[in-house]
Amino acid sequence: MSDRREFRDLATPEEARAVVEGLDIDPGTEAVPLADARDRVLAERVDATLDVPGFDRASMDGYAVRARDTFGAGEATPETLELAGTVHAGEEPDVTVDAGTAAEISTGAVMPDGADAVVMVERTTETDDGVEIRTAVTPGEHVMLAGADIAAGARALGPGTHLTPREIGLLAALGVDEVEVQSRPRVGIVSTGDELVRPGDELDSAAGQIYDVNSDTIAAGVEDAGGEPVLYPHAGDDFEAMEELLHEAADECDLVLSSGSTSASAVDVIYRVIEERGDLRLHGVAVKPGKPMLVGTIGESAYVGLPGYPVSALTIFRTFVAPVIRDAAGLPEPRTATVAGEMAVDERYSEGRLRYMPVGLVDDGEGATLVYPVDKGSGATTSLVDADGTVAVQPDTEVLPAGRTVEVTLFSPDVRVPALFGVGEDDPLWNRLLDRIEAPRYLPTGTADGLRRLRDGVPDVAVVAGPTAEEEPGEELGGWTREWGLAVAPDSDVADLATLVDGDYRFVNRDGGSGLRRSFDAELERVADDRGASVAAVTDAIDGYELTAEATESPARKVAAGEADAGLSLGATAATLGLEFVPLGTERVRVLANRDRTEKESVERLRRLLGELDDLAAGIEGFEG
Amino acid sequence: MSDRREFRDLATPEEARAVVEGLDIDPGTEAVPLADARDRVLAERVDATLDVPGFDRASMDGYAVRARDTFGAGEATPETLELAGTVHAGEEPDVTVDAGTAAEISTGAVMPDGADAVVMVERTTETDDGVEIRTAVTPGEHVMLAGADIAAGARALGPGTHLTPREIGLLAALGVDEVEVQSRPRVGIVSTGDELVRPGDELDSAAGQIYDVNSDTIAAGVEDAGGEPVLYPHAGDDFEAMEELLHEAADECDLVLSSGSTSASAVDVIYRVIEERGDLRLHGVAVKPGKPMLVGTIGESAYVGLPGYPVSALTIFRTFVAPVIRDAAGLPEPRTATVAGEMAVDERYSEGRLRYMPVGLVDDGEGATLVYPVDKGSGATTSLVDADGTVAVQPDTEVLPAGRTVEVTLFSPDVRVPALFGVGEDDPLWNRLLDRIEAPRYLPTGTADGLRRLRDGVPDVAVVAGPTAEEEPGEELGGWTREWGLAVAPDSDVADLATLVDGDYRFVNRDGGSGLRRSFDAELERVADDRGASVAAVTDAIDGYELTAEATESPARKVAAGEADAGLSLGATAATLGLEFVPLGTERVRVLANRDRTEKESVERLRRLLGELDDLAAGIEGFEG
Repeated sequence: MSDRREFRDLATPEEARAVVEGLDIDPGTEAVPLADARDRVLAERVDATLDVPGFDRASMDGYAVRARDTFGAGEATPETLELAGTVHAGEEPDVTVDAGTAAEISTGAVMPDGADAVVMVERTTETDDGVEIRTAVTPGEHVMLAGADIAAGARALGPGTHLTPREIGLLAALGVDEVEVQSRPRVGIVSTGDELVRPGDELDSAAGQIYDVNSDTIAAGVEDAGGEPVLYPHAGDDFEAMEELLHEAADECDLVLSSGSTSASAVDVIYRVIEERGDLRLHGVAVKPGKPMLVGTIGESAYVGLPGYPVSALTIFRTFVAPVIRDAAGLPEPRTATVAGEMAVDERYSEGRLRYMPVGLVDDGEGATLVYPVDKGSGATTSLVDADGTVAVQPDTEVLPAGRTVEVTLFSPDVRVPALFGVGEDDPLWNRLLDRIEAPRYLPTGTADGLRRLRDGVPDVAVVAGPTAEEEPGEELGGWTREWGLAVAPDSDVADLATLVDGDYRFVNRDGGSGLRRSFDAELERVADDRGASVAAVTDAIDGYELTAEATESPARKVAAGEADAGLSLGATAATLGLEFVPLGTERVRVLANRDRTEKESVERLRRLLGELDDLAAGIEGFEG
Repeated sequence: MSDRREFRDLATPEEARAVVEGLDIDPGTEAVPLADARDRVLAERVDATLDVPGFDRASMDGYAVRARDTFGAGEATPETLELAGTVHAGEEPDVTVDAGTAAEISTGAVMPDGADAVVMVERTTETDDGVEIRTAVTPGEHVMLAGADIAAGARALGPGTHLTPREIGLLAALGVDEVEVQSRPRVGIVSTGDELVRPGDELDSAAGQIYDVNSDTIAAGVEDAGGEPVLYPHAGDDFEAMEELLHEAADECDLVLSSGSTSASAVDVIYRVIEERGDLRLHGVAVKPGKPMLVGTIGESAYVGLPGYPVSALTIFRTFVAPVIRDAAGLPEPRTATVAGEMAVDERYSEGRLRYMPVGLVDDGEGATLVYPVDKGSGATTSLVDADGTVAVQPDTEVLPAGRTVEVTLFSPDVRVPALFGVGEDDPLWNRLLDRIEAPRYLPTGTADGLRRLRDGVPDVAVVAGPTAEEEPGEELGGWTREWGLAVAPDSDVADLATLVDGDYRFVNRDGGSGLRRSFDAELERVADDRGASVAAVTDAIDGYELTAEATESPARKVAAGEADAGLSLGATAATLGLEFVPLGTERVRVLANRDRTEKESVERLRRLLGELDDLAAGIEGFEG
């Protein structure tokens, strides 16, 4: 591996920003119809080429008069003028208002020759002799003069103006049906890596395939920033194909982004292409997440290589790349929304580089915002949605202690603090219950983690299942019962727990933190007791007892896929997957509330919902509300 | 006119809001490809249907091992394991890791059978005997277990989730390539009124035609709110056509908006259509601007009639209609951005209804924000862009005094306080100069208005031209010289001012507030002096002296259009329009700064720019920097 890939000389974030800002991705300008101009940016000044209005215009329904004919008129001293005719909006007047006469006129109509003011209809009465005027008007009253709104030659909108409905209104008033705007920079997205499969296509997990997350994520980010994403077909790790693709993208786009491959040899191809056709300006930046970042040029195009892990790729994109796309599109930097909050737990850090720490927010029910780190480890995609923003942790930080006030930069100004934050057991009824709560966040990390976090005081609620030995750290809001047991293939002869222990079956267990596993272990203890054997002897007899899967459906899915004979499962899951089910018991699932937050609105709503579970429970096999 | 149109029983804003919210414009749901899902809203819960990752996955480059084989290994006590093979990302392992062996593994690759941890490459050395391990690892170290990111059956995203790049990333990780989202409500826009012409088409000002502003403005507003606008062809005031169009729009859309016609008979048609096929629920709301608002149904569609004037139409749309479109699209109400500021001037108000007063903002250079009302009168379209937001003025308010703190609701969170605010003379060099300043606002209301407002302390600068008698209210930053005179038709025999006074020519003047007019009047005084005549005698001799136009180019444009023989003009304007020019003199245009704001960044920049005018002046006929 060559030195250059070992990131010995990582750039500082400021240096990286300067290098990316130094790239030329100016896309030029283009003419678009007014109907497509919303959210675009004017490339040049627009001056008015006509007066608006184009004529002296009545701004009231009433009578066009010579003002001096009304001087002295009042409620007690009406003045009668001869009716000379009528002018409607949208027609050329065929009447002249001479001294002593008036013309009926509609709002928006052209002032007839001779008239210099309008008397509003409410202050007049038509009589047999003409029209009785009961108020005096001054010259120009209720008339908008030609050009009074905007006059020919006046500067209407400057270059760089962001076109919102208001600016579009002014352009329409000027008769403009096409405007020259800043083009959207074309941003090519090249994803590499043999293991990547496009969403929607078949996935071969045994061969280590995963879905390509970065292409769609970064494409959406490019659109958010005002660019036009161009997705290139997936290149795999075929070096010739990758090289060709990079050339093609560089020829067609203002900026090329690549991401996906973590393999050293794929990176070699990229280096070679840049060296042959461009210029490498930066490799590696001292931030976390996101260290491996390449910046340079390929041919006439700018190039940025993003890290492979989605959270890293999106962080680098948002931090360094989106601002230059926005700038090239002429769009203003969005107002960054920030929220101050208190660290809910201690967070240790000692990597010596700037860290954009993803964090979640929770409202403590009394108006304060608590901040907790979200880090499921490199490569987790759920971190994308489990966080609300980031806290910049300086390189020399060792610990951010609980209680420390930090500033959170929200992912977008639209981000709201979730109304309810829960952690704990994964459960199908709970999933449906959450649909009835607005803006919830739930981390299904198991009963043990739910209890631990509730004890730390971070979430509003924990969902726990199965037997719990420990003193409970929260107030029970309600719960339900679910049937559990073994999911087995339709032709299986696993009939009960004894068969599983004594026979030769491949079993898939759940992880130790889950309530389901707690119920299973309690049942195995009973079996050991009955047999006068040790628990270890019983569990050792089950082939796969140590083979755990992370969530409710996973063991059953292994059975469905033919990879195992039996899996620890809910009855509901077996039914959903069309498997046979060997019931071993029922367990109670309970929702425990943080004792400081029982008055919080969302917690109170949850308590009410937990009182009306019948319809939800009725829809799921083996559940009782 | 029937009672119902006299708005005797205006609804309160709260009532109006409730009535509009009561309309049913739910558009249902639709499936869209993931690539088009950005900014849409999930219609239903998405549960994971697979484990992510789908296999136990190495999260480091290194060696897959049995953890217990490394216990005791360290820098000083390396442990050597036999090399059993290699696993790359994206391929099925063809190797088993037995006790005492290790397999080379890439980040992202499938853990081979037997292995339960990864030793990172940096802590190893390959030797002839195999691989030397220099650290101990625990089971699971540097391995992401199947389902650890998100597991099959877990709730991934709830209904109502707004899809940003982050959520799109999670959906991609789950292999989802199509999602069920809330449809965008279809909003039909029907514009009525004989006087309206589509932008881009020819305008007959003499016949009172104006461009249709509302259709494009409201369409852009509908898009901003997450709806899909459908523009119907302009109906004019042909009642049968209008009726047919309303029926068609109601059949095709979830909501129909009409606007444009101010004529009583057009409103009659709308009433008739609603009465025959729908239900009228509200007419008239006690707000300014915007009183005439209709709410009801036509067939299966909801209907809202907007006022005709653009500012009124957009205010009613933003206040009452946009929230229900957003709600129907499932989008969150945007965070309203507000700014506190001090009233810069007194504003009187006594109309007894809630007023959404459009206001502009200006930074006083010391961190405070000043707020001034923007009201060019009913029907002005420039008010759309001359304001930054609105202040809600309560019905019982009589005056908002200067200095009073008010809360301004910005038109959007992106609105920034203009960096420079100027008022005064309209001038082509100044228009170009403004292009070099970021985010300026300039109101070309003439020299007199510029001086008046600068005296009130509101703008940063005033631009003044021609002789000014009064003491100057600001510090001169710099200026330039421009040639002025008469624009005349190519075949005209107007040769000098004397010809104009003595001959029989139709003349068009500028308004009294302009610097050009001041220079012209000073010149006429000189002519009167020379002749020993009164000024009035001289001006009376000019046919059209009283016929004033609002801006620099307007008189010359009248000449170009054949409507006048001579117009007061700049030499530059005559050149632009291809007219002959009779020079009468030069005048100085000067930029005066508010004395309290000479240190303000944009004012300092302007002072610098005024020192380098040569290139700008060189591009304009008759100008000198």
